[in-house]
Amino acid sequence: MTTFRITIAYDGTGFHGYAANPGVRTVQGELEAALATVIGTPVATVVAGRTDAGVHARANVVSFVTEATVEPARLQRSITAMLGPEIVAVEAAAAPDGFDARFSAVWRRYRYRIDAGRVPDPLLARTAWHVPHPLDLAAMNRAAAAFVGEHDFASLCRASEGRTTVRTVLEAAWHDHDPGPVFEVTAQAFCHQMVRSMVALCVEVGRGRVEAGRIPEILAARDRNLARGAAPPHGLVLWEVEYPAG
Amino acid sequence: MTTFRITIAYDGTGFHGYAANPGVRTVQGELEAALATVIGTPVATVVAGRTDAGVHARANVVSFVTEATVEPARLQRSITAMLGPEIVAVEAAAAPDGFDARFSAVWRRYRYRIDAGRVPDPLLARTAWHVPHPLDLAAMNRAAAAFVGEHDFASLCRASEGRTTVRTVLEAAWHDHDPGPVFEVTAQAFCHQMVRSMVALCVEVGRGRVEAGRIPEILAARDRNLARGAAPPHGLVLWEVEYPAG
Repeated sequence: MTTFRITIAYDGTGFHGYAANPGVRTVQGELEAALATVIGTPVATVVAGRTDAGVHARANVVSFVTEATVEPARLQRSITAMLGPEIVAVEAAAAPDGFDARFSAVWRRYRYRIDAGRVPDPLLARTAWHVPHPLDLAAMNRAAAAFVGEHDFASLCRASEGRTTVRTVLEAAWHDHDPGPVFEVTAQAFCHQMVRSMVALCVEVGRGRVEAGRIPEILAARDRNLARGAAPPHGLVLWEVEYPAG
Repeated sequence: MTTFRITIAYDGTGFHGYAANPGVRTVQGELEAALATVIGTPVATVVAGRTDAGVHARANVVSFVTEATVEPARLQRSITAMLGPEIVAVEAAAAPDGFDARFSAVWRRYRYRIDAGRVPDPLLARTAWHVPHPLDLAAMNRAAAAFVGEHDFASLCRASEGRTTVRTVLEAAWHDHDPGPVFEVTAQAFCHQMVRSMVALCVEVGRGRVEAGRIPEILAARDRNLARGAAPPHGLVLWEVEYPAG
């Protein structure tokens, strides 16, 4: 039995999310169909980030175990040839026994892009949220700083019965960029809609409609009604996933 | 009679080029239909750059003359609301009598983007040409420098019976960028497929398959067969058009 690890990038626009879902087109569905063709037998994959519909990935990581023998380089080339450029395999390699793309991950990093131009840039329409308002970047960074550390993010997550919403955010910051700021956030793991809820709240802060100083109390309340909804999915990219060395 | 000037941006992916063409979806077709609705009467537009199918624009310029009275700001908002984010009106203004988006233009500037990554980036698939080879940027810039000045570009233009192919290139250079170089070229005017032919030739130079020193003789030969075809349209953006002040 060999464990494989594949790093994939995709444009999420044309998919109903990452996770396989009978009857709709998903990244996992397309990927597992291609893998079955290349390997000659079905495989069950595990993924680092189950991205929502419309969310993109620069480097999501998938793992699977198979009895079949296949060259990793051939896997990489074949998947890219079959599914690219919508889904491409950036890398493929044999992984140590027990490697699991989901549970072995040390942290995940996301980026969210805003187009703050007066009119939307048509070439960013699939990858940036158009917010045609002046944004106070310093205030947005004060808001982002309040996310760092271990918190219960129930106010910023779509509830999932019986699961904890406590997460540890390692870094969170807005970066000046043209034509609008880019949010980069790193955590061991994220709960559902957490990044997009952070972005929506930071944008309210940037527009002067919420005080950055209120973020700690919004988190402490553990009340989804205090959030400002979720930013649209298409600005979000799963940027990087880190694993232990070796 | 009032002359109007509108600056438009568009994602060319979904259009059969700029120019109106019965039975197919074009930028001009969509724009004139929207203008007729807003103004209440049909108008005939003139454009600075008649971009090919798949080519994008950041700031193409359109002009038209009408007897109707309409606020430029309303034109800008209405077009963007009706056609955005695929086509947006960046600006709209009344122009001096006699202003003609095509014939008044002093120069046009284009950019062409290359994705030189080992695998294509899915999020650049609509806007960059994937060239997965090492590219010698210095050599590409020696090639680009040979385009500057007044030359007969017959070797780099799709022929058009009876029309001159002499053009004056003001600037041409490749800029280092991630994940691949960007070409920026400015000329009073371009002939058909000229920028994409320049790009294809420069890429051959960058790959070491054509010597940069051969560009002057390729131009002097006035022979389209000496070119290296045309780079694909989707990497090209009409970036800027300049008009006389006032």
